[in-house]
Amino acid sequence: MASRPTELPNTHAGKPMLEVLKGKRCDPVPMWMMRQAGRYLPEYRQLRQDKGSFLNLVSDPEAAAAITLQPLERFPELDAAILFSDILIVPFAIGQNLTFITGEGPRLTPTLLDSALDELTGYPARLEPIYETVRKVRQRLADDKTLIGFAGSPWTVATYMVAGEGSRDQAESRRLAYADPDRFGAIIDRIEAVTLDYLSNQVEAGAEALQLFDSWAGNLSPVQFERWVVAPTARIVAALRERHPGVPLIGFPKGAGGKIAAYARETGVSAIGLDETVDPQWAAKELPTDLPVQGNLDPLALVAGGEALDSAVRVILDAFADRPHIFNLGHGILQDTPVEHVGELIALVKGGR
Amino acid sequence: MASRPTELPNTHAGKPMLEVLKGKRCDPVPMWMMRQAGRYLPEYRQLRQDKGSFLNLVSDPEAAAAITLQPLERFPELDAAILFSDILIVPFAIGQNLTFITGEGPRLTPTLLDSALDELTGYPARLEPIYETVRKVRQRLADDKTLIGFAGSPWTVATYMVAGEGSRDQAESRRLAYADPDRFGAIIDRIEAVTLDYLSNQVEAGAEALQLFDSWAGNLSPVQFERWVVAPTARIVAALRERHPGVPLIGFPKGAGGKIAAYARETGVSAIGLDETVDPQWAAKELPTDLPVQGNLDPLALVAGGEALDSAVRVILDAFADRPHIFNLGHGILQDTPVEHVGELIALVKGGR
Repeated sequence: MASRPTELPNTHAGKPMLEVLKGKRCDPVPMWMMRQAGRYLPEYRQLRQDKGSFLNLVSDPEAAAAITLQPLERFPELDAAILFSDILIVPFAIGQNLTFITGEGPRLTPTLLDSALDELTGYPARLEPIYETVRKVRQRLADDKTLIGFAGSPWTVATYMVAGEGSRDQAESRRLAYADPDRFGAIIDRIEAVTLDYLSNQVEAGAEALQLFDSWAGNLSPVQFERWVVAPTARIVAALRERHPGVPLIGFPKGAGGKIAAYARETGVSAIGLDETVDPQWAAKELPTDLPVQGNLDPLALVAGGEALDSAVRVILDAFADRPHIFNLGHGILQDTPVEHVGELIALVKGGR
Repeated sequence: MASRPTELPNTHAGKPMLEVLKGKRCDPVPMWMMRQAGRYLPEYRQLRQDKGSFLNLVSDPEAAAAITLQPLERFPELDAAILFSDILIVPFAIGQNLTFITGEGPRLTPTLLDSALDELTGYPARLEPIYETVRKVRQRLADDKTLIGFAGSPWTVATYMVAGEGSRDQAESRRLAYADPDRFGAIIDRIEAVTLDYLSNQVEAGAEALQLFDSWAGNLSPVQFERWVVAPTARIVAALRERHPGVPLIGFPKGAGGKIAAYARETGVSAIGLDETVDPQWAAKELPTDLPVQGNLDPLALVAGGEALDSAVRVILDAFADRPHIFNLGHGILQDTPVEHVGELIALVKGGR
């Protein structure tokens, strides 16, 4: 097992992560890790071996709930659980076939290069097991922990639906968006509608905060970024705020670089997730002082451990010391991360500045 | 042949691009395009077919000079020629084997994962044909055109030398840099020394401006960015300024996003190239008003043409109207770019605002 840091009293009552998302500062800062329920954990690999494919696990509420809770059982200092699922569940619900090929990543068929959007007739029932997972996790989660639901952003999900897989620079979708903005807009609209219901239903089932993953926001020109990232995100944020006032939504526009302040301002997200390439000191100046930020340790620094980890953590904690901050990685935890390094990270973050 | 825009008188004497690099504004703005000598041009494809592989062409000064000049013969409104070569000529000179596999990109062997740096004993003679190309181009270039020499940045070149090829997120180099910074630092130092001589020799041969391509600057954490991008670039800039006072160097930290202002300030580059993901209006506020900027049209907008091209060009020209600006793409021109769209682009840029 990992080394455990000394337990520290939390100076804020209730759920520290939700407090921060409301705009309060907490010391020590709350933390969780993107993909914290995943392959770096031996207990996950074991369950995966027993239960079969990723899609089987996601569609099995009992297994998915157990996996969602695994990281908190090993590391009780973590402040949040994030639903064990995948952003491609939405295209699966819309009607594409979803397979995960070992070593190659996910595949969606037929792609929207090969077929028309209206041939995907949709099976919202495919999302029901996810809501059941949320309910199960919420029942079992300790009172001070926050349950995060999530979805991919319409843009990022569209890149997979169009190309059928992750691609180096999302050229297929960017080309389609230039060549036929009406057709591409219809794809975005469809994803947006399903995503809105999907997130809303997660809240109904017990999710207390939401994150919108825009993993492929980075390669867009500013004009396309406004139209395909900012505008749909703003509409989702507004609609969710109306349906579920007070439920925070974290936007995570990975790779958005210099466009993060505009993204935060124009989408109205409750908080912004920063990827590992963002300089925290720059971001602290660039973003409004009351905007909660989440991030942004380089997952490779966590793999490295030692001095590289220590100094990277301190830079982040120092830069965000004066604002609401949730500690996280800048991207998902890597499969080859030594589990004991996670214990070291928690000690650094929870040990305070 | 492409449609030609009306010739417009240039309001600045001499070489407009060098004027802008000295901090002056020109109207119309000077322009060139990254990879302007390349596969979108039928005359390039013809010469390639006749003369064989890319490496053959680069090593043949007569052919390389002809290719360098091709875009200016077709589009005499362009303000600069950039040496036809490749950033991987430096690893080739250091002693790696370089091959270009159709559809897969370049390969370097042996990689620095498989062999030690000191096994690469170097053949500086491999660079001699490049200098001869520069001399030939300079002799043939019109008086108002600027000849640009270039190299890859130590970081970007290192990513290829370590992994042997381009990789999705440069993980091999980023991992090595965390795990063994001394060894990685030695690789950077070696590349830096060769690059400095290489650029200096290009100036001696007739290059009037230089560009340092940092194509893979985008995925680094801020700590690694400072150490492996900013610091070596700053040393190269300082050394070149001492050897060749007045010869401008354009830094192009592709994907650096929110770190561009720090990059410009700390490296001391004469101008900064912006990739297509940078919002020009944001960059205009973020960067010092007297710093020349170069960029940053989305190459896919040039493929698209029409209204998408027109509006993207206007946003860029408007945002940079009050500062020294060289129009360029945000990345290399794409192979499937219709040649007539380049004519349209030139008309838009040279037609003024």
